[in-house]
Amino acid sequence: MTRNYTPVRFTAVSIDGEFWRERLDTVLARTIPSQYEQLEGNGMLASLDVPRPPPPLRIPVGEHGLSTQIFWDSDIGKWIEAASYALAHRRDAAIEERIERIVDRYERAQAPDGYLNCWYLSRDPEGRWSNLRDCHELYCAGHLLEGAIAYWQATGRRRLLDVMIRYVQHIASMFGRGPGQRRGYCGHQEIELALVKLHHATGERAYLDLAAYFIDERGSQPPHYYDVEARARGDDPAKYWFGSYEYNQSHRPVREQDKVVGHAVRAMYMYTAMADLAADLGDERLKRTCETLWRDVTRHRIYLTAGLGPAAANEGFTRDYDLPNDTAYAETCASVALIFWAQRMLNLDCDGAYADVLEQSLYNGALSGLSRDGTHYFYQNPLESDGTHGRWTWHPCPCCTMNIARLVASVGGYFYSTGRDTLAIHLYGGNTADIDLGGTRVRLQQQTAYPWDGQVRISLDPSAPARFRLRLRIPGWARSHALKLNGAPLPSAPKDRGYVEIDRTWTPGDVVELTLPMPVERVYADPRVRADVGRVALKRGPLVYCAEQVDNPDAPLDLVRLPAAARIESAARQDLLGGIVSLVAEGEVALVDPEDARLYRTARVPKRPVRLTAVPYYAWANRGSNAMQVWIAED
Amino acid sequence: MTRNYTPVRFTAVSIDGEFWRERLDTVLARTIPSQYEQLEGNGMLASLDVPRPPPPLRIPVGEHGLSTQIFWDSDIGKWIEAASYALAHRRDAAIEERIERIVDRYERAQAPDGYLNCWYLSRDPEGRWSNLRDCHELYCAGHLLEGAIAYWQATGRRRLLDVMIRYVQHIASMFGRGPGQRRGYCGHQEIELALVKLHHATGERAYLDLAAYFIDERGSQPPHYYDVEARARGDDPAKYWFGSYEYNQSHRPVREQDKVVGHAVRAMYMYTAMADLAADLGDERLKRTCETLWRDVTRHRIYLTAGLGPAAANEGFTRDYDLPNDTAYAETCASVALIFWAQRMLNLDCDGAYADVLEQSLYNGALSGLSRDGTHYFYQNPLESDGTHGRWTWHPCPCCTMNIARLVASVGGYFYSTGRDTLAIHLYGGNTADIDLGGTRVRLQQQTAYPWDGQVRISLDPSAPARFRLRLRIPGWARSHALKLNGAPLPSAPKDRGYVEIDRTWTPGDVVELTLPMPVERVYADPRVRADVGRVALKRGPLVYCAEQVDNPDAPLDLVRLPAAARIESAARQDLLGGIVSLVAEGEVALVDPEDARLYRTARVPKRPVRLTAVPYYAWANRGSNAMQVWIAED
Repeated sequence: MTRNYTPVRFTAVSIDGEFWRERLDTVLARTIPSQYEQLEGNGMLASLDVPRPPPPLRIPVGEHGLSTQIFWDSDIGKWIEAASYALAHRRDAAIEERIERIVDRYERAQAPDGYLNCWYLSRDPEGRWSNLRDCHELYCAGHLLEGAIAYWQATGRRRLLDVMIRYVQHIASMFGRGPGQRRGYCGHQEIELALVKLHHATGERAYLDLAAYFIDERGSQPPHYYDVEARARGDDPAKYWFGSYEYNQSHRPVREQDKVVGHAVRAMYMYTAMADLAADLGDERLKRTCETLWRDVTRHRIYLTAGLGPAAANEGFTRDYDLPNDTAYAETCASVALIFWAQRMLNLDCDGAYADVLEQSLYNGALSGLSRDGTHYFYQNPLESDGTHGRWTWHPCPCCTMNIARLVASVGGYFYSTGRDTLAIHLYGGNTADIDLGGTRVRLQQQTAYPWDGQVRISLDPSAPARFRLRLRIPGWARSHALKLNGAPLPSAPKDRGYVEIDRTWTPGDVVELTLPMPVERVYADPRVRADVGRVALKRGPLVYCAEQVDNPDAPLDLVRLPAAARIESAARQDLLGGIVSLVAEGEVALVDPEDARLYRTARVPKRPVRLTAVPYYAWANRGSNAMQVWIAED
Repeated sequence: MTRNYTPVRFTAVSIDGEFWRERLDTVLARTIPSQYEQLEGNGMLASLDVPRPPPPLRIPVGEHGLSTQIFWDSDIGKWIEAASYALAHRRDAAIEERIERIVDRYERAQAPDGYLNCWYLSRDPEGRWSNLRDCHELYCAGHLLEGAIAYWQATGRRRLLDVMIRYVQHIASMFGRGPGQRRGYCGHQEIELALVKLHHATGERAYLDLAAYFIDERGSQPPHYYDVEARARGDDPAKYWFGSYEYNQSHRPVREQDKVVGHAVRAMYMYTAMADLAADLGDERLKRTCETLWRDVTRHRIYLTAGLGPAAANEGFTRDYDLPNDTAYAETCASVALIFWAQRMLNLDCDGAYADVLEQSLYNGALSGLSRDGTHYFYQNPLESDGTHGRWTWHPCPCCTMNIARLVASVGGYFYSTGRDTLAIHLYGGNTADIDLGGTRVRLQQQTAYPWDGQVRISLDPSAPARFRLRLRIPGWARSHALKLNGAPLPSAPKDRGYVEIDRTWTPGDVVELTLPMPVERVYADPRVRADVGRVALKRGPLVYCAEQVDNPDAPLDLVRLPAAARIESAARQDLLGGIVSLVAEGEVALVDPEDARLYRTARVPKRPVRLTAVPYYAWANRGSNAMQVWIAED
């Protein structure tokens, strides 16, 4: 088995539809520059200068004796990656100059043997590789490596890539099953997927093998590497602060895992690498493991918004159907990383089930992490708030900021894939793509107001008439669809794993029109999801909606009810949030009598009608912190 | 203002009704003896021998650097109290012998100046009184004092009382506003209410004054005593492990408190003492503070079962309407202590609102803490369980075991009060009481199957014809009632604060018959209680019901629904749990299709009918750990 489909790179996709164009412009113009200012203003760039003795910590150690400052290399790497995606859109000498100066610092900091972790180099040079479980050295290396690859691909400048390849070679010398090597792997998975990227970028097999080693070695026992390592540094492994290696998915060998557990971002990064390796190594068993884990998370452990991980304690997973709304952790990074994993799974077989989740995350749980103004963020993405959950401009652990920036800056890369004689369209949205399909260049243009409207006009201009299958995703949320080819209705054909195919010889000027009706839908959770019992959520197309207090001044959200028979209509609102489709419903408000404050009574309290307005979930908390609900009591 | 009503002591009330007789017999025959074995087997009695150096800790220190072993004096004190109540029912030489040997140990351990805390005496004699905030010395003294009073009252033996009075005199010399005294008070309130008991038992005013000092001094600032004390022992007050003095209700002066906050048991013990002091000192302001706090807790922060304190983190209160069911902490001790407070409030004015909560706790959240066999316990009393919450035989912090034992052993003391020319009946249940009403002896007998049935026959036999008001509580849960006097219906009279009064000259052989219809009631929570939205609970009379998985093998509880129109009937079941009235309802089970495992869908899943059985909440988990729900999705 190999990967049957190849994503079309974002550099070949020019986003011109309003929805993503606005967000992309904001990220390029505001998010990426403002993040640089944060890196500089928070001392993160200065930390690369490896002084001895090191300056006092800027971020104090937390309850587990660690400072998030230990991850700073990863944050810088992720910013370089996002900034490089910006450069790929349009070269910018000022940004390149900034990155070059960072590269200077990394060049200077790198140890003669290639080692390059600025935290350890400045604070504990002898302690390197002594605590893979907690200290994120390989995780940092992975993010820096992703940044270096992106920068090289965007600009042709490979100085940072060379630095990182030297570092990777050092890593490859340290870890493995050879004599004198350590059988370690990182407590926070990331380097595995970065090594696959390096393999794809360079063609060098050794990087793939190193990624495979990290995946295969993970969780093998006895002895467990983190036990060995803890004893070597004089710690008692039994005193591991989290208690279980489920936290970092090393509780058992990776191929034997069948439940999605532990820290959500670690899990998603690992599964991404596993899907990559399954494809690149033709490893059917690893593919089946991925499929088992995919089924587990999507059937038992995912929010409607594609948020992942209900619990703050482990930033991750708990029990099946445990999906509390107000305390949902649902880290932005986890939803972004789910998109990475979904894309890898999608490109194995082009099964729309993966694209459905990719889209679900993209428009909801991931995008909610970024404000409209491009400079405010969520780390947690709860599905309900009493008004105390607000967006921030920076965070002691700013991982989410650069994750959502790099996603949006490269969003065009999730729209299309090519397979053998096949061009697959996964996402809809206005864009113009130049796609190489086995030697034929195809210019494809989508004209649509998606996600606000389900009318999509797709024009295809092959450089010469060419026969190929156009594979059009029919989203899982669509109850029906209609297709026209050059103005004539196409009879409905059975779907193949969520896609309809048009197999013909395409000529310049061909036009396919797809209609995906977008009624407002009531959504119910599995009855075992305790938090959603008696509650309904509203969706339209790919968007999950929420009621925000600011739109409903007469309806305290904790008293709002949406009767099962209530009419709900959609309404285009150019005046709201830069132009959205809102929902308007005939709701009710429970009447609480201040004179009769009984907490329990034998009759339901009376209600009065109220007009309820809902807005897309991704857009909430852009008008100040205020109460919000995705799941509304249906009553 | 003084206390207008005086409770009739439990020693004057002979319980003969089936419900309480069975529980009382179990506590006397099994609970109290088995608890002694636990005290002995767990090394708690040996800890009184004050060896130096002390033996290793049996209970290791926890996350805040403290061991629950520090409270052992309180556990022993509470056992002496419970055992003394048993002796008041029937003298027992073996139990007295055991208590006498404990008294020997305390006599030997007591320091020449009267100080008596076995933990400090054996482990840190110089450290006494250095950490009132965390170390429970005065709390332990309070419980030992309650035990000493009860033992003296039951047996006339006052050796332990004398020991404790010496200790109290030492305490009075150490704490207060005089020169050289410390202006401290205990981090865990308890001694205040014990000192009021000592005042009542001895008539000595100084004990009341000391209780009033502890209440009045609490929370006064600046400086805050716990800040002063922390600095004196070299600690930084800002590093207090809980962060806020709300935890122990010393965040502001007691009279200025208007929200029920912090650790629930501490709060309830404090409010109990406040209500006592309000009565004994005629302190109207303190009474109003109590009333404000009572309104707050009953309107915003109490479970249907009268459980208190949703959170494990502080064993206490969080936010208004935050009443999660599955994670409810609802410590048994807190519900028991609520009964103490409610009784004090009730005896101020005989307002049935207090008796309603007293009864609600007695039959539900407090009684659930004790198993049918009398030797298994709950510390937490959640209102929902997935089957993982079970009863235990002992606990590193066994406070709840002796609390429920002393409550049940003295349950007769909550049935009646006397006021000026008034005899008030607060609780119904078979018993025979000999009551002194201003010199007239009244023998009162209740014949009833309460709480299973609402027919109560009350016969009154005054020693001579006597005029007094009989004040009969009409429970808040009763929608109607009917009264007969000597077989003739009494016209309905307006209720006075939840009671009807019959003012007449009573003669031997008079019989009052009270009928309280007990239909099954659906109960709904305030719409702001998020955890109960779309859910219904079932009550009948004073009892809250729950569905337990063991009675519903065909209905997985997480899939159970109870339609709003479903018929629910009561059914006497002699075969269940020693004889109960169960409820039987026409419920439904959501059908989850193992082939279609979508977590979210646009239609509710279909349902099949199922016969649901519910049992009284207090009786759950007596047939092994299994899933349970009080609040059932109504759907």
